[in-house]
Amino acid sequence: MDRLTIIKVGGKVVEDEKSLNDLLDQFNKISGHKLLIHGGGRTATEISKKLGIKIKMVDGRRITNKETLDVVIMVYAGLVNKKVVAGLQARNCNALGLTGADLGLIQAKKREVKDIDYGYVGDVEDVNSRELRLLIDENVIPVIAPLTHDGNGQLLNTNADTIAAEIAGELASYYSTFLFYCFEKKGVLLNQDDESSLIYELDSKLMEEYITDGTINAGMIPKLENGFRAKRKGVKEVLITNPENISTGRGTRLI
Amino acid sequence: MDRLTIIKVGGKVVEDEKSLNDLLDQFNKISGHKLLIHGGGRTATEISKKLGIKIKMVDGRRITNKETLDVVIMVYAGLVNKKVVAGLQARNCNALGLTGADLGLIQAKKREVKDIDYGYVGDVEDVNSRELRLLIDENVIPVIAPLTHDGNGQLLNTNADTIAAEIAGELASYYSTFLFYCFEKKGVLLNQDDESSLIYELDSKLMEEYITDGTINAGMIPKLENGFRAKRKGVKEVLITNPENISTGRGTRLI
Repeated sequence: MDRLTIIKVGGKVVEDEKSLNDLLDQFNKISGHKLLIHGGGRTATEISKKLGIKIKMVDGRRITNKETLDVVIMVYAGLVNKKVVAGLQARNCNALGLTGADLGLIQAKKREVKDIDYGYVGDVEDVNSRELRLLIDENVIPVIAPLTHDGNGQLLNTNADTIAAEIAGELASYYSTFLFYCFEKKGVLLNQDDESSLIYELDSKLMEEYITDGTINAGMIPKLENGFRAKRKGVKEVLITNPENISTGRGTRLI
Repeated sequence: MDRLTIIKVGGKVVEDEKSLNDLLDQFNKISGHKLLIHGGGRTATEISKKLGIKIKMVDGRRITNKETLDVVIMVYAGLVNKKVVAGLQARNCNALGLTGADLGLIQAKKREVKDIDYGYVGDVEDVNSRELRLLIDENVIPVIAPLTHDGNGQLLNTNADTIAAEIAGELASYYSTFLFYCFEKKGVLLNQDDESSLIYELDSKLMEEYITDGTINAGMIPKLENGFRAKRKGVKEVLITNPENISTGRGTRLI
């Protein structure tokens, strides 16, 4: 099976010009098939503020009313996605920017209202791996913004970590798939203020212990749960790391 | 040769929900290969105002400084493009939203500063018809936002009428290509206030006369010039019309 590297990068990395360029340089060096999934939350927050739209977050998740949905569509699918695409094209990477609506790639269901009404937030139901494989096999590099659609014309805001795990899990039957969650730290740390306290390997049992004793903070939990789900679906390697260590493979390996 | 229908729709049509849905219904009925190019200027103006960015137009062309470029990227590639894509997917049209940066489709050169500095505005240099044909032959429906790139990572704002003509001209060697410029009127009118004064056929000599005597107004001239250039490049038929007449083929035919 061909190798496929899937990189998910958080907002902070792609929203600053310097760190974006560093990331694209690192990404460019990856051999074999590759795919990038990005966030953009910080810019969405900034643009929302400028437009006078109130930001409501619950447990780190954005409550997405109609106005906020328009902002995240503009920022994720527009500003961030196209800057990444143009930056990769300048590096001779044949990038193609996509959302889950394009080619019907990712169908989702608007989250049901229970305790909280998240608004136009989608939970992934189906990844169209056939279309993705056609692109990848043509040596196209998909650059995916965290938006999905419901198949009835409605776009939905969807967590980028989840999209990365779902895509990786779906493609794991066709490629030897490596999934890297990149953010600003070296990986999962025992002590948030000490980059040398990196946890090199993590299994789900150890994760539970660290969650219980508070070592792993709330923001990291969904990322890890997504990572372990991808592993269970046959993804060969899941690594939590920073962009500089994409090439070295150092970071926190989920086992 | 297979038939390819290229529809260019102006901002007014795609920016209002009702008229967008009508357009997508009409577009859905077109048989054979098809491709859509859209504008989005009115929404860009509206968002610019909300963000407190001054709008500067010269002869109907937007002066695109860095801030304005970010707005047009957000609106054209984000908001408008993805709503069109999601709307087509809901109609079982396998739409894929694109800018000229995606797949390196349209390379442009930043317009040189002569009398006026247009800012980040690009003049088309090259259309990558190979990538477009791969998509079209896979029955993908490209939905193109009026943005290009310079190949060095810079996105550029580019006139949608020009992009439509360039793409049509480039694909005319491979498909029996029909180009429809759709806007809110029935076609080119002898009297702007009278929809029954439609000019059914127009050649470039008659166009010159109408320009001289003021029958054809300034806003229509670049559209017509683009249309005639596409004809000269082998496009089978160029029609100026409204979305309702895509199916009837009524409107102003360039001959």
